Amino acid sequence: MTRYWEDFAVGDVFELGEYRLERDELLAFARRYDPQPFHVDDAAAAAGPFGGLAASGWHTAAIWMRLYALSLLADCVSLGSPGIRELRWLAPVRPGTLLRARVTVDGAEPSSRHPDRGTLFMRGELLEPDARVVLTLVARGLFGRRPPADLG
Amino acid sequence: MTRYWEDFAVGDVFELGEYRLERDELLAFARRYDPQPFHVDDAAAAAGPFGGLAASGWHTAAIWMRLYALSLLADCVSLGSPGIRELRWLAPVRPGTLLRARVTVDGAEPSSRHPDRGTLFMRGELLEPDARVVLTLVARGLFGRRPPADLG
Repeated sequence: MTRYWEDFAVGDVFELGEYRLERDELLAFARRYDPQPFHVDDAAAAAGPFGGLAASGWHTAAIWMRLYALSLLADCVSLGSPGIRELRWLAPVRPGTLLRARVTVDGAEPSSRHPDRGTLFMRGELLEPDARVVLTLVARGLFGRRPPADLG
Repeated sequence: MTRYWEDFAVGDVFELGEYRLERDELLAFARRYDPQPFHVDDAAAAAGPFGGLAASGWHTAAIWMRLYALSLLADCVSLGSPGIRELRWLAPVRPGTLLRARVTVDGAEPSSRHPDRGTLFMRGELLEPDARVVLTLVARGLFGRRPPADLG
């Protein structure tokens, strides 16, 4: 089943699955993209603001994206995103953590310029096994609208 | 020289250097973290909303972070970030593009709870060689304040 813009309603919640963030991957990402001491060096991290090694927040955002893309967007007419309205990193994420992703439809707007598309405001969350939320964001997603021939 | 919160003033601009986003890296990142057709498949991308293969926006954000971390944060008392206020992807970024990063101090607030730290609002930009801006964001950065003994 292909999902169009019309197939979402404000308040819909989707569970997007899990991803274990292994230590090797945490370090590889941080060394390349966010080489701050608390992301790449155990000793410096222990003495730093997070009291131990923590994943780059860009890495946890990317993991949320992976789960969103594979679990939901793969079945949608997704046309990309002009951006993120707010991205919050609420708690440090440690090596080995099993992360779970969720998304809630927060708003929907038809496009005023393009009758064949609309925006969905998607509130994403990444959670630890104890349900603590470690990341939230609100993504602006462009989605195709159902072609007229499909309307009935 | 170590930079503290006090060493920044609203309006300060820092050039953060360049990074060439090669095709192999674009594909590797997208396959793992953002496997949408327009990020991983040339043929599908050619027919898609960007008219060709484009980098994941999370990848370009991570590249901005790398340049910011290496060129500026490495010399700062950086205590991490609670998040990003707004992240915009303004144009598709193609394989092989040479990206240039810049950051402007947009605001500064001392912490009301912690006298030893403050927030800087950092407006980041990623630009193509023709100066077209492809990404903007506003990062909330926590920075250590200069210890009293250093003041005089």
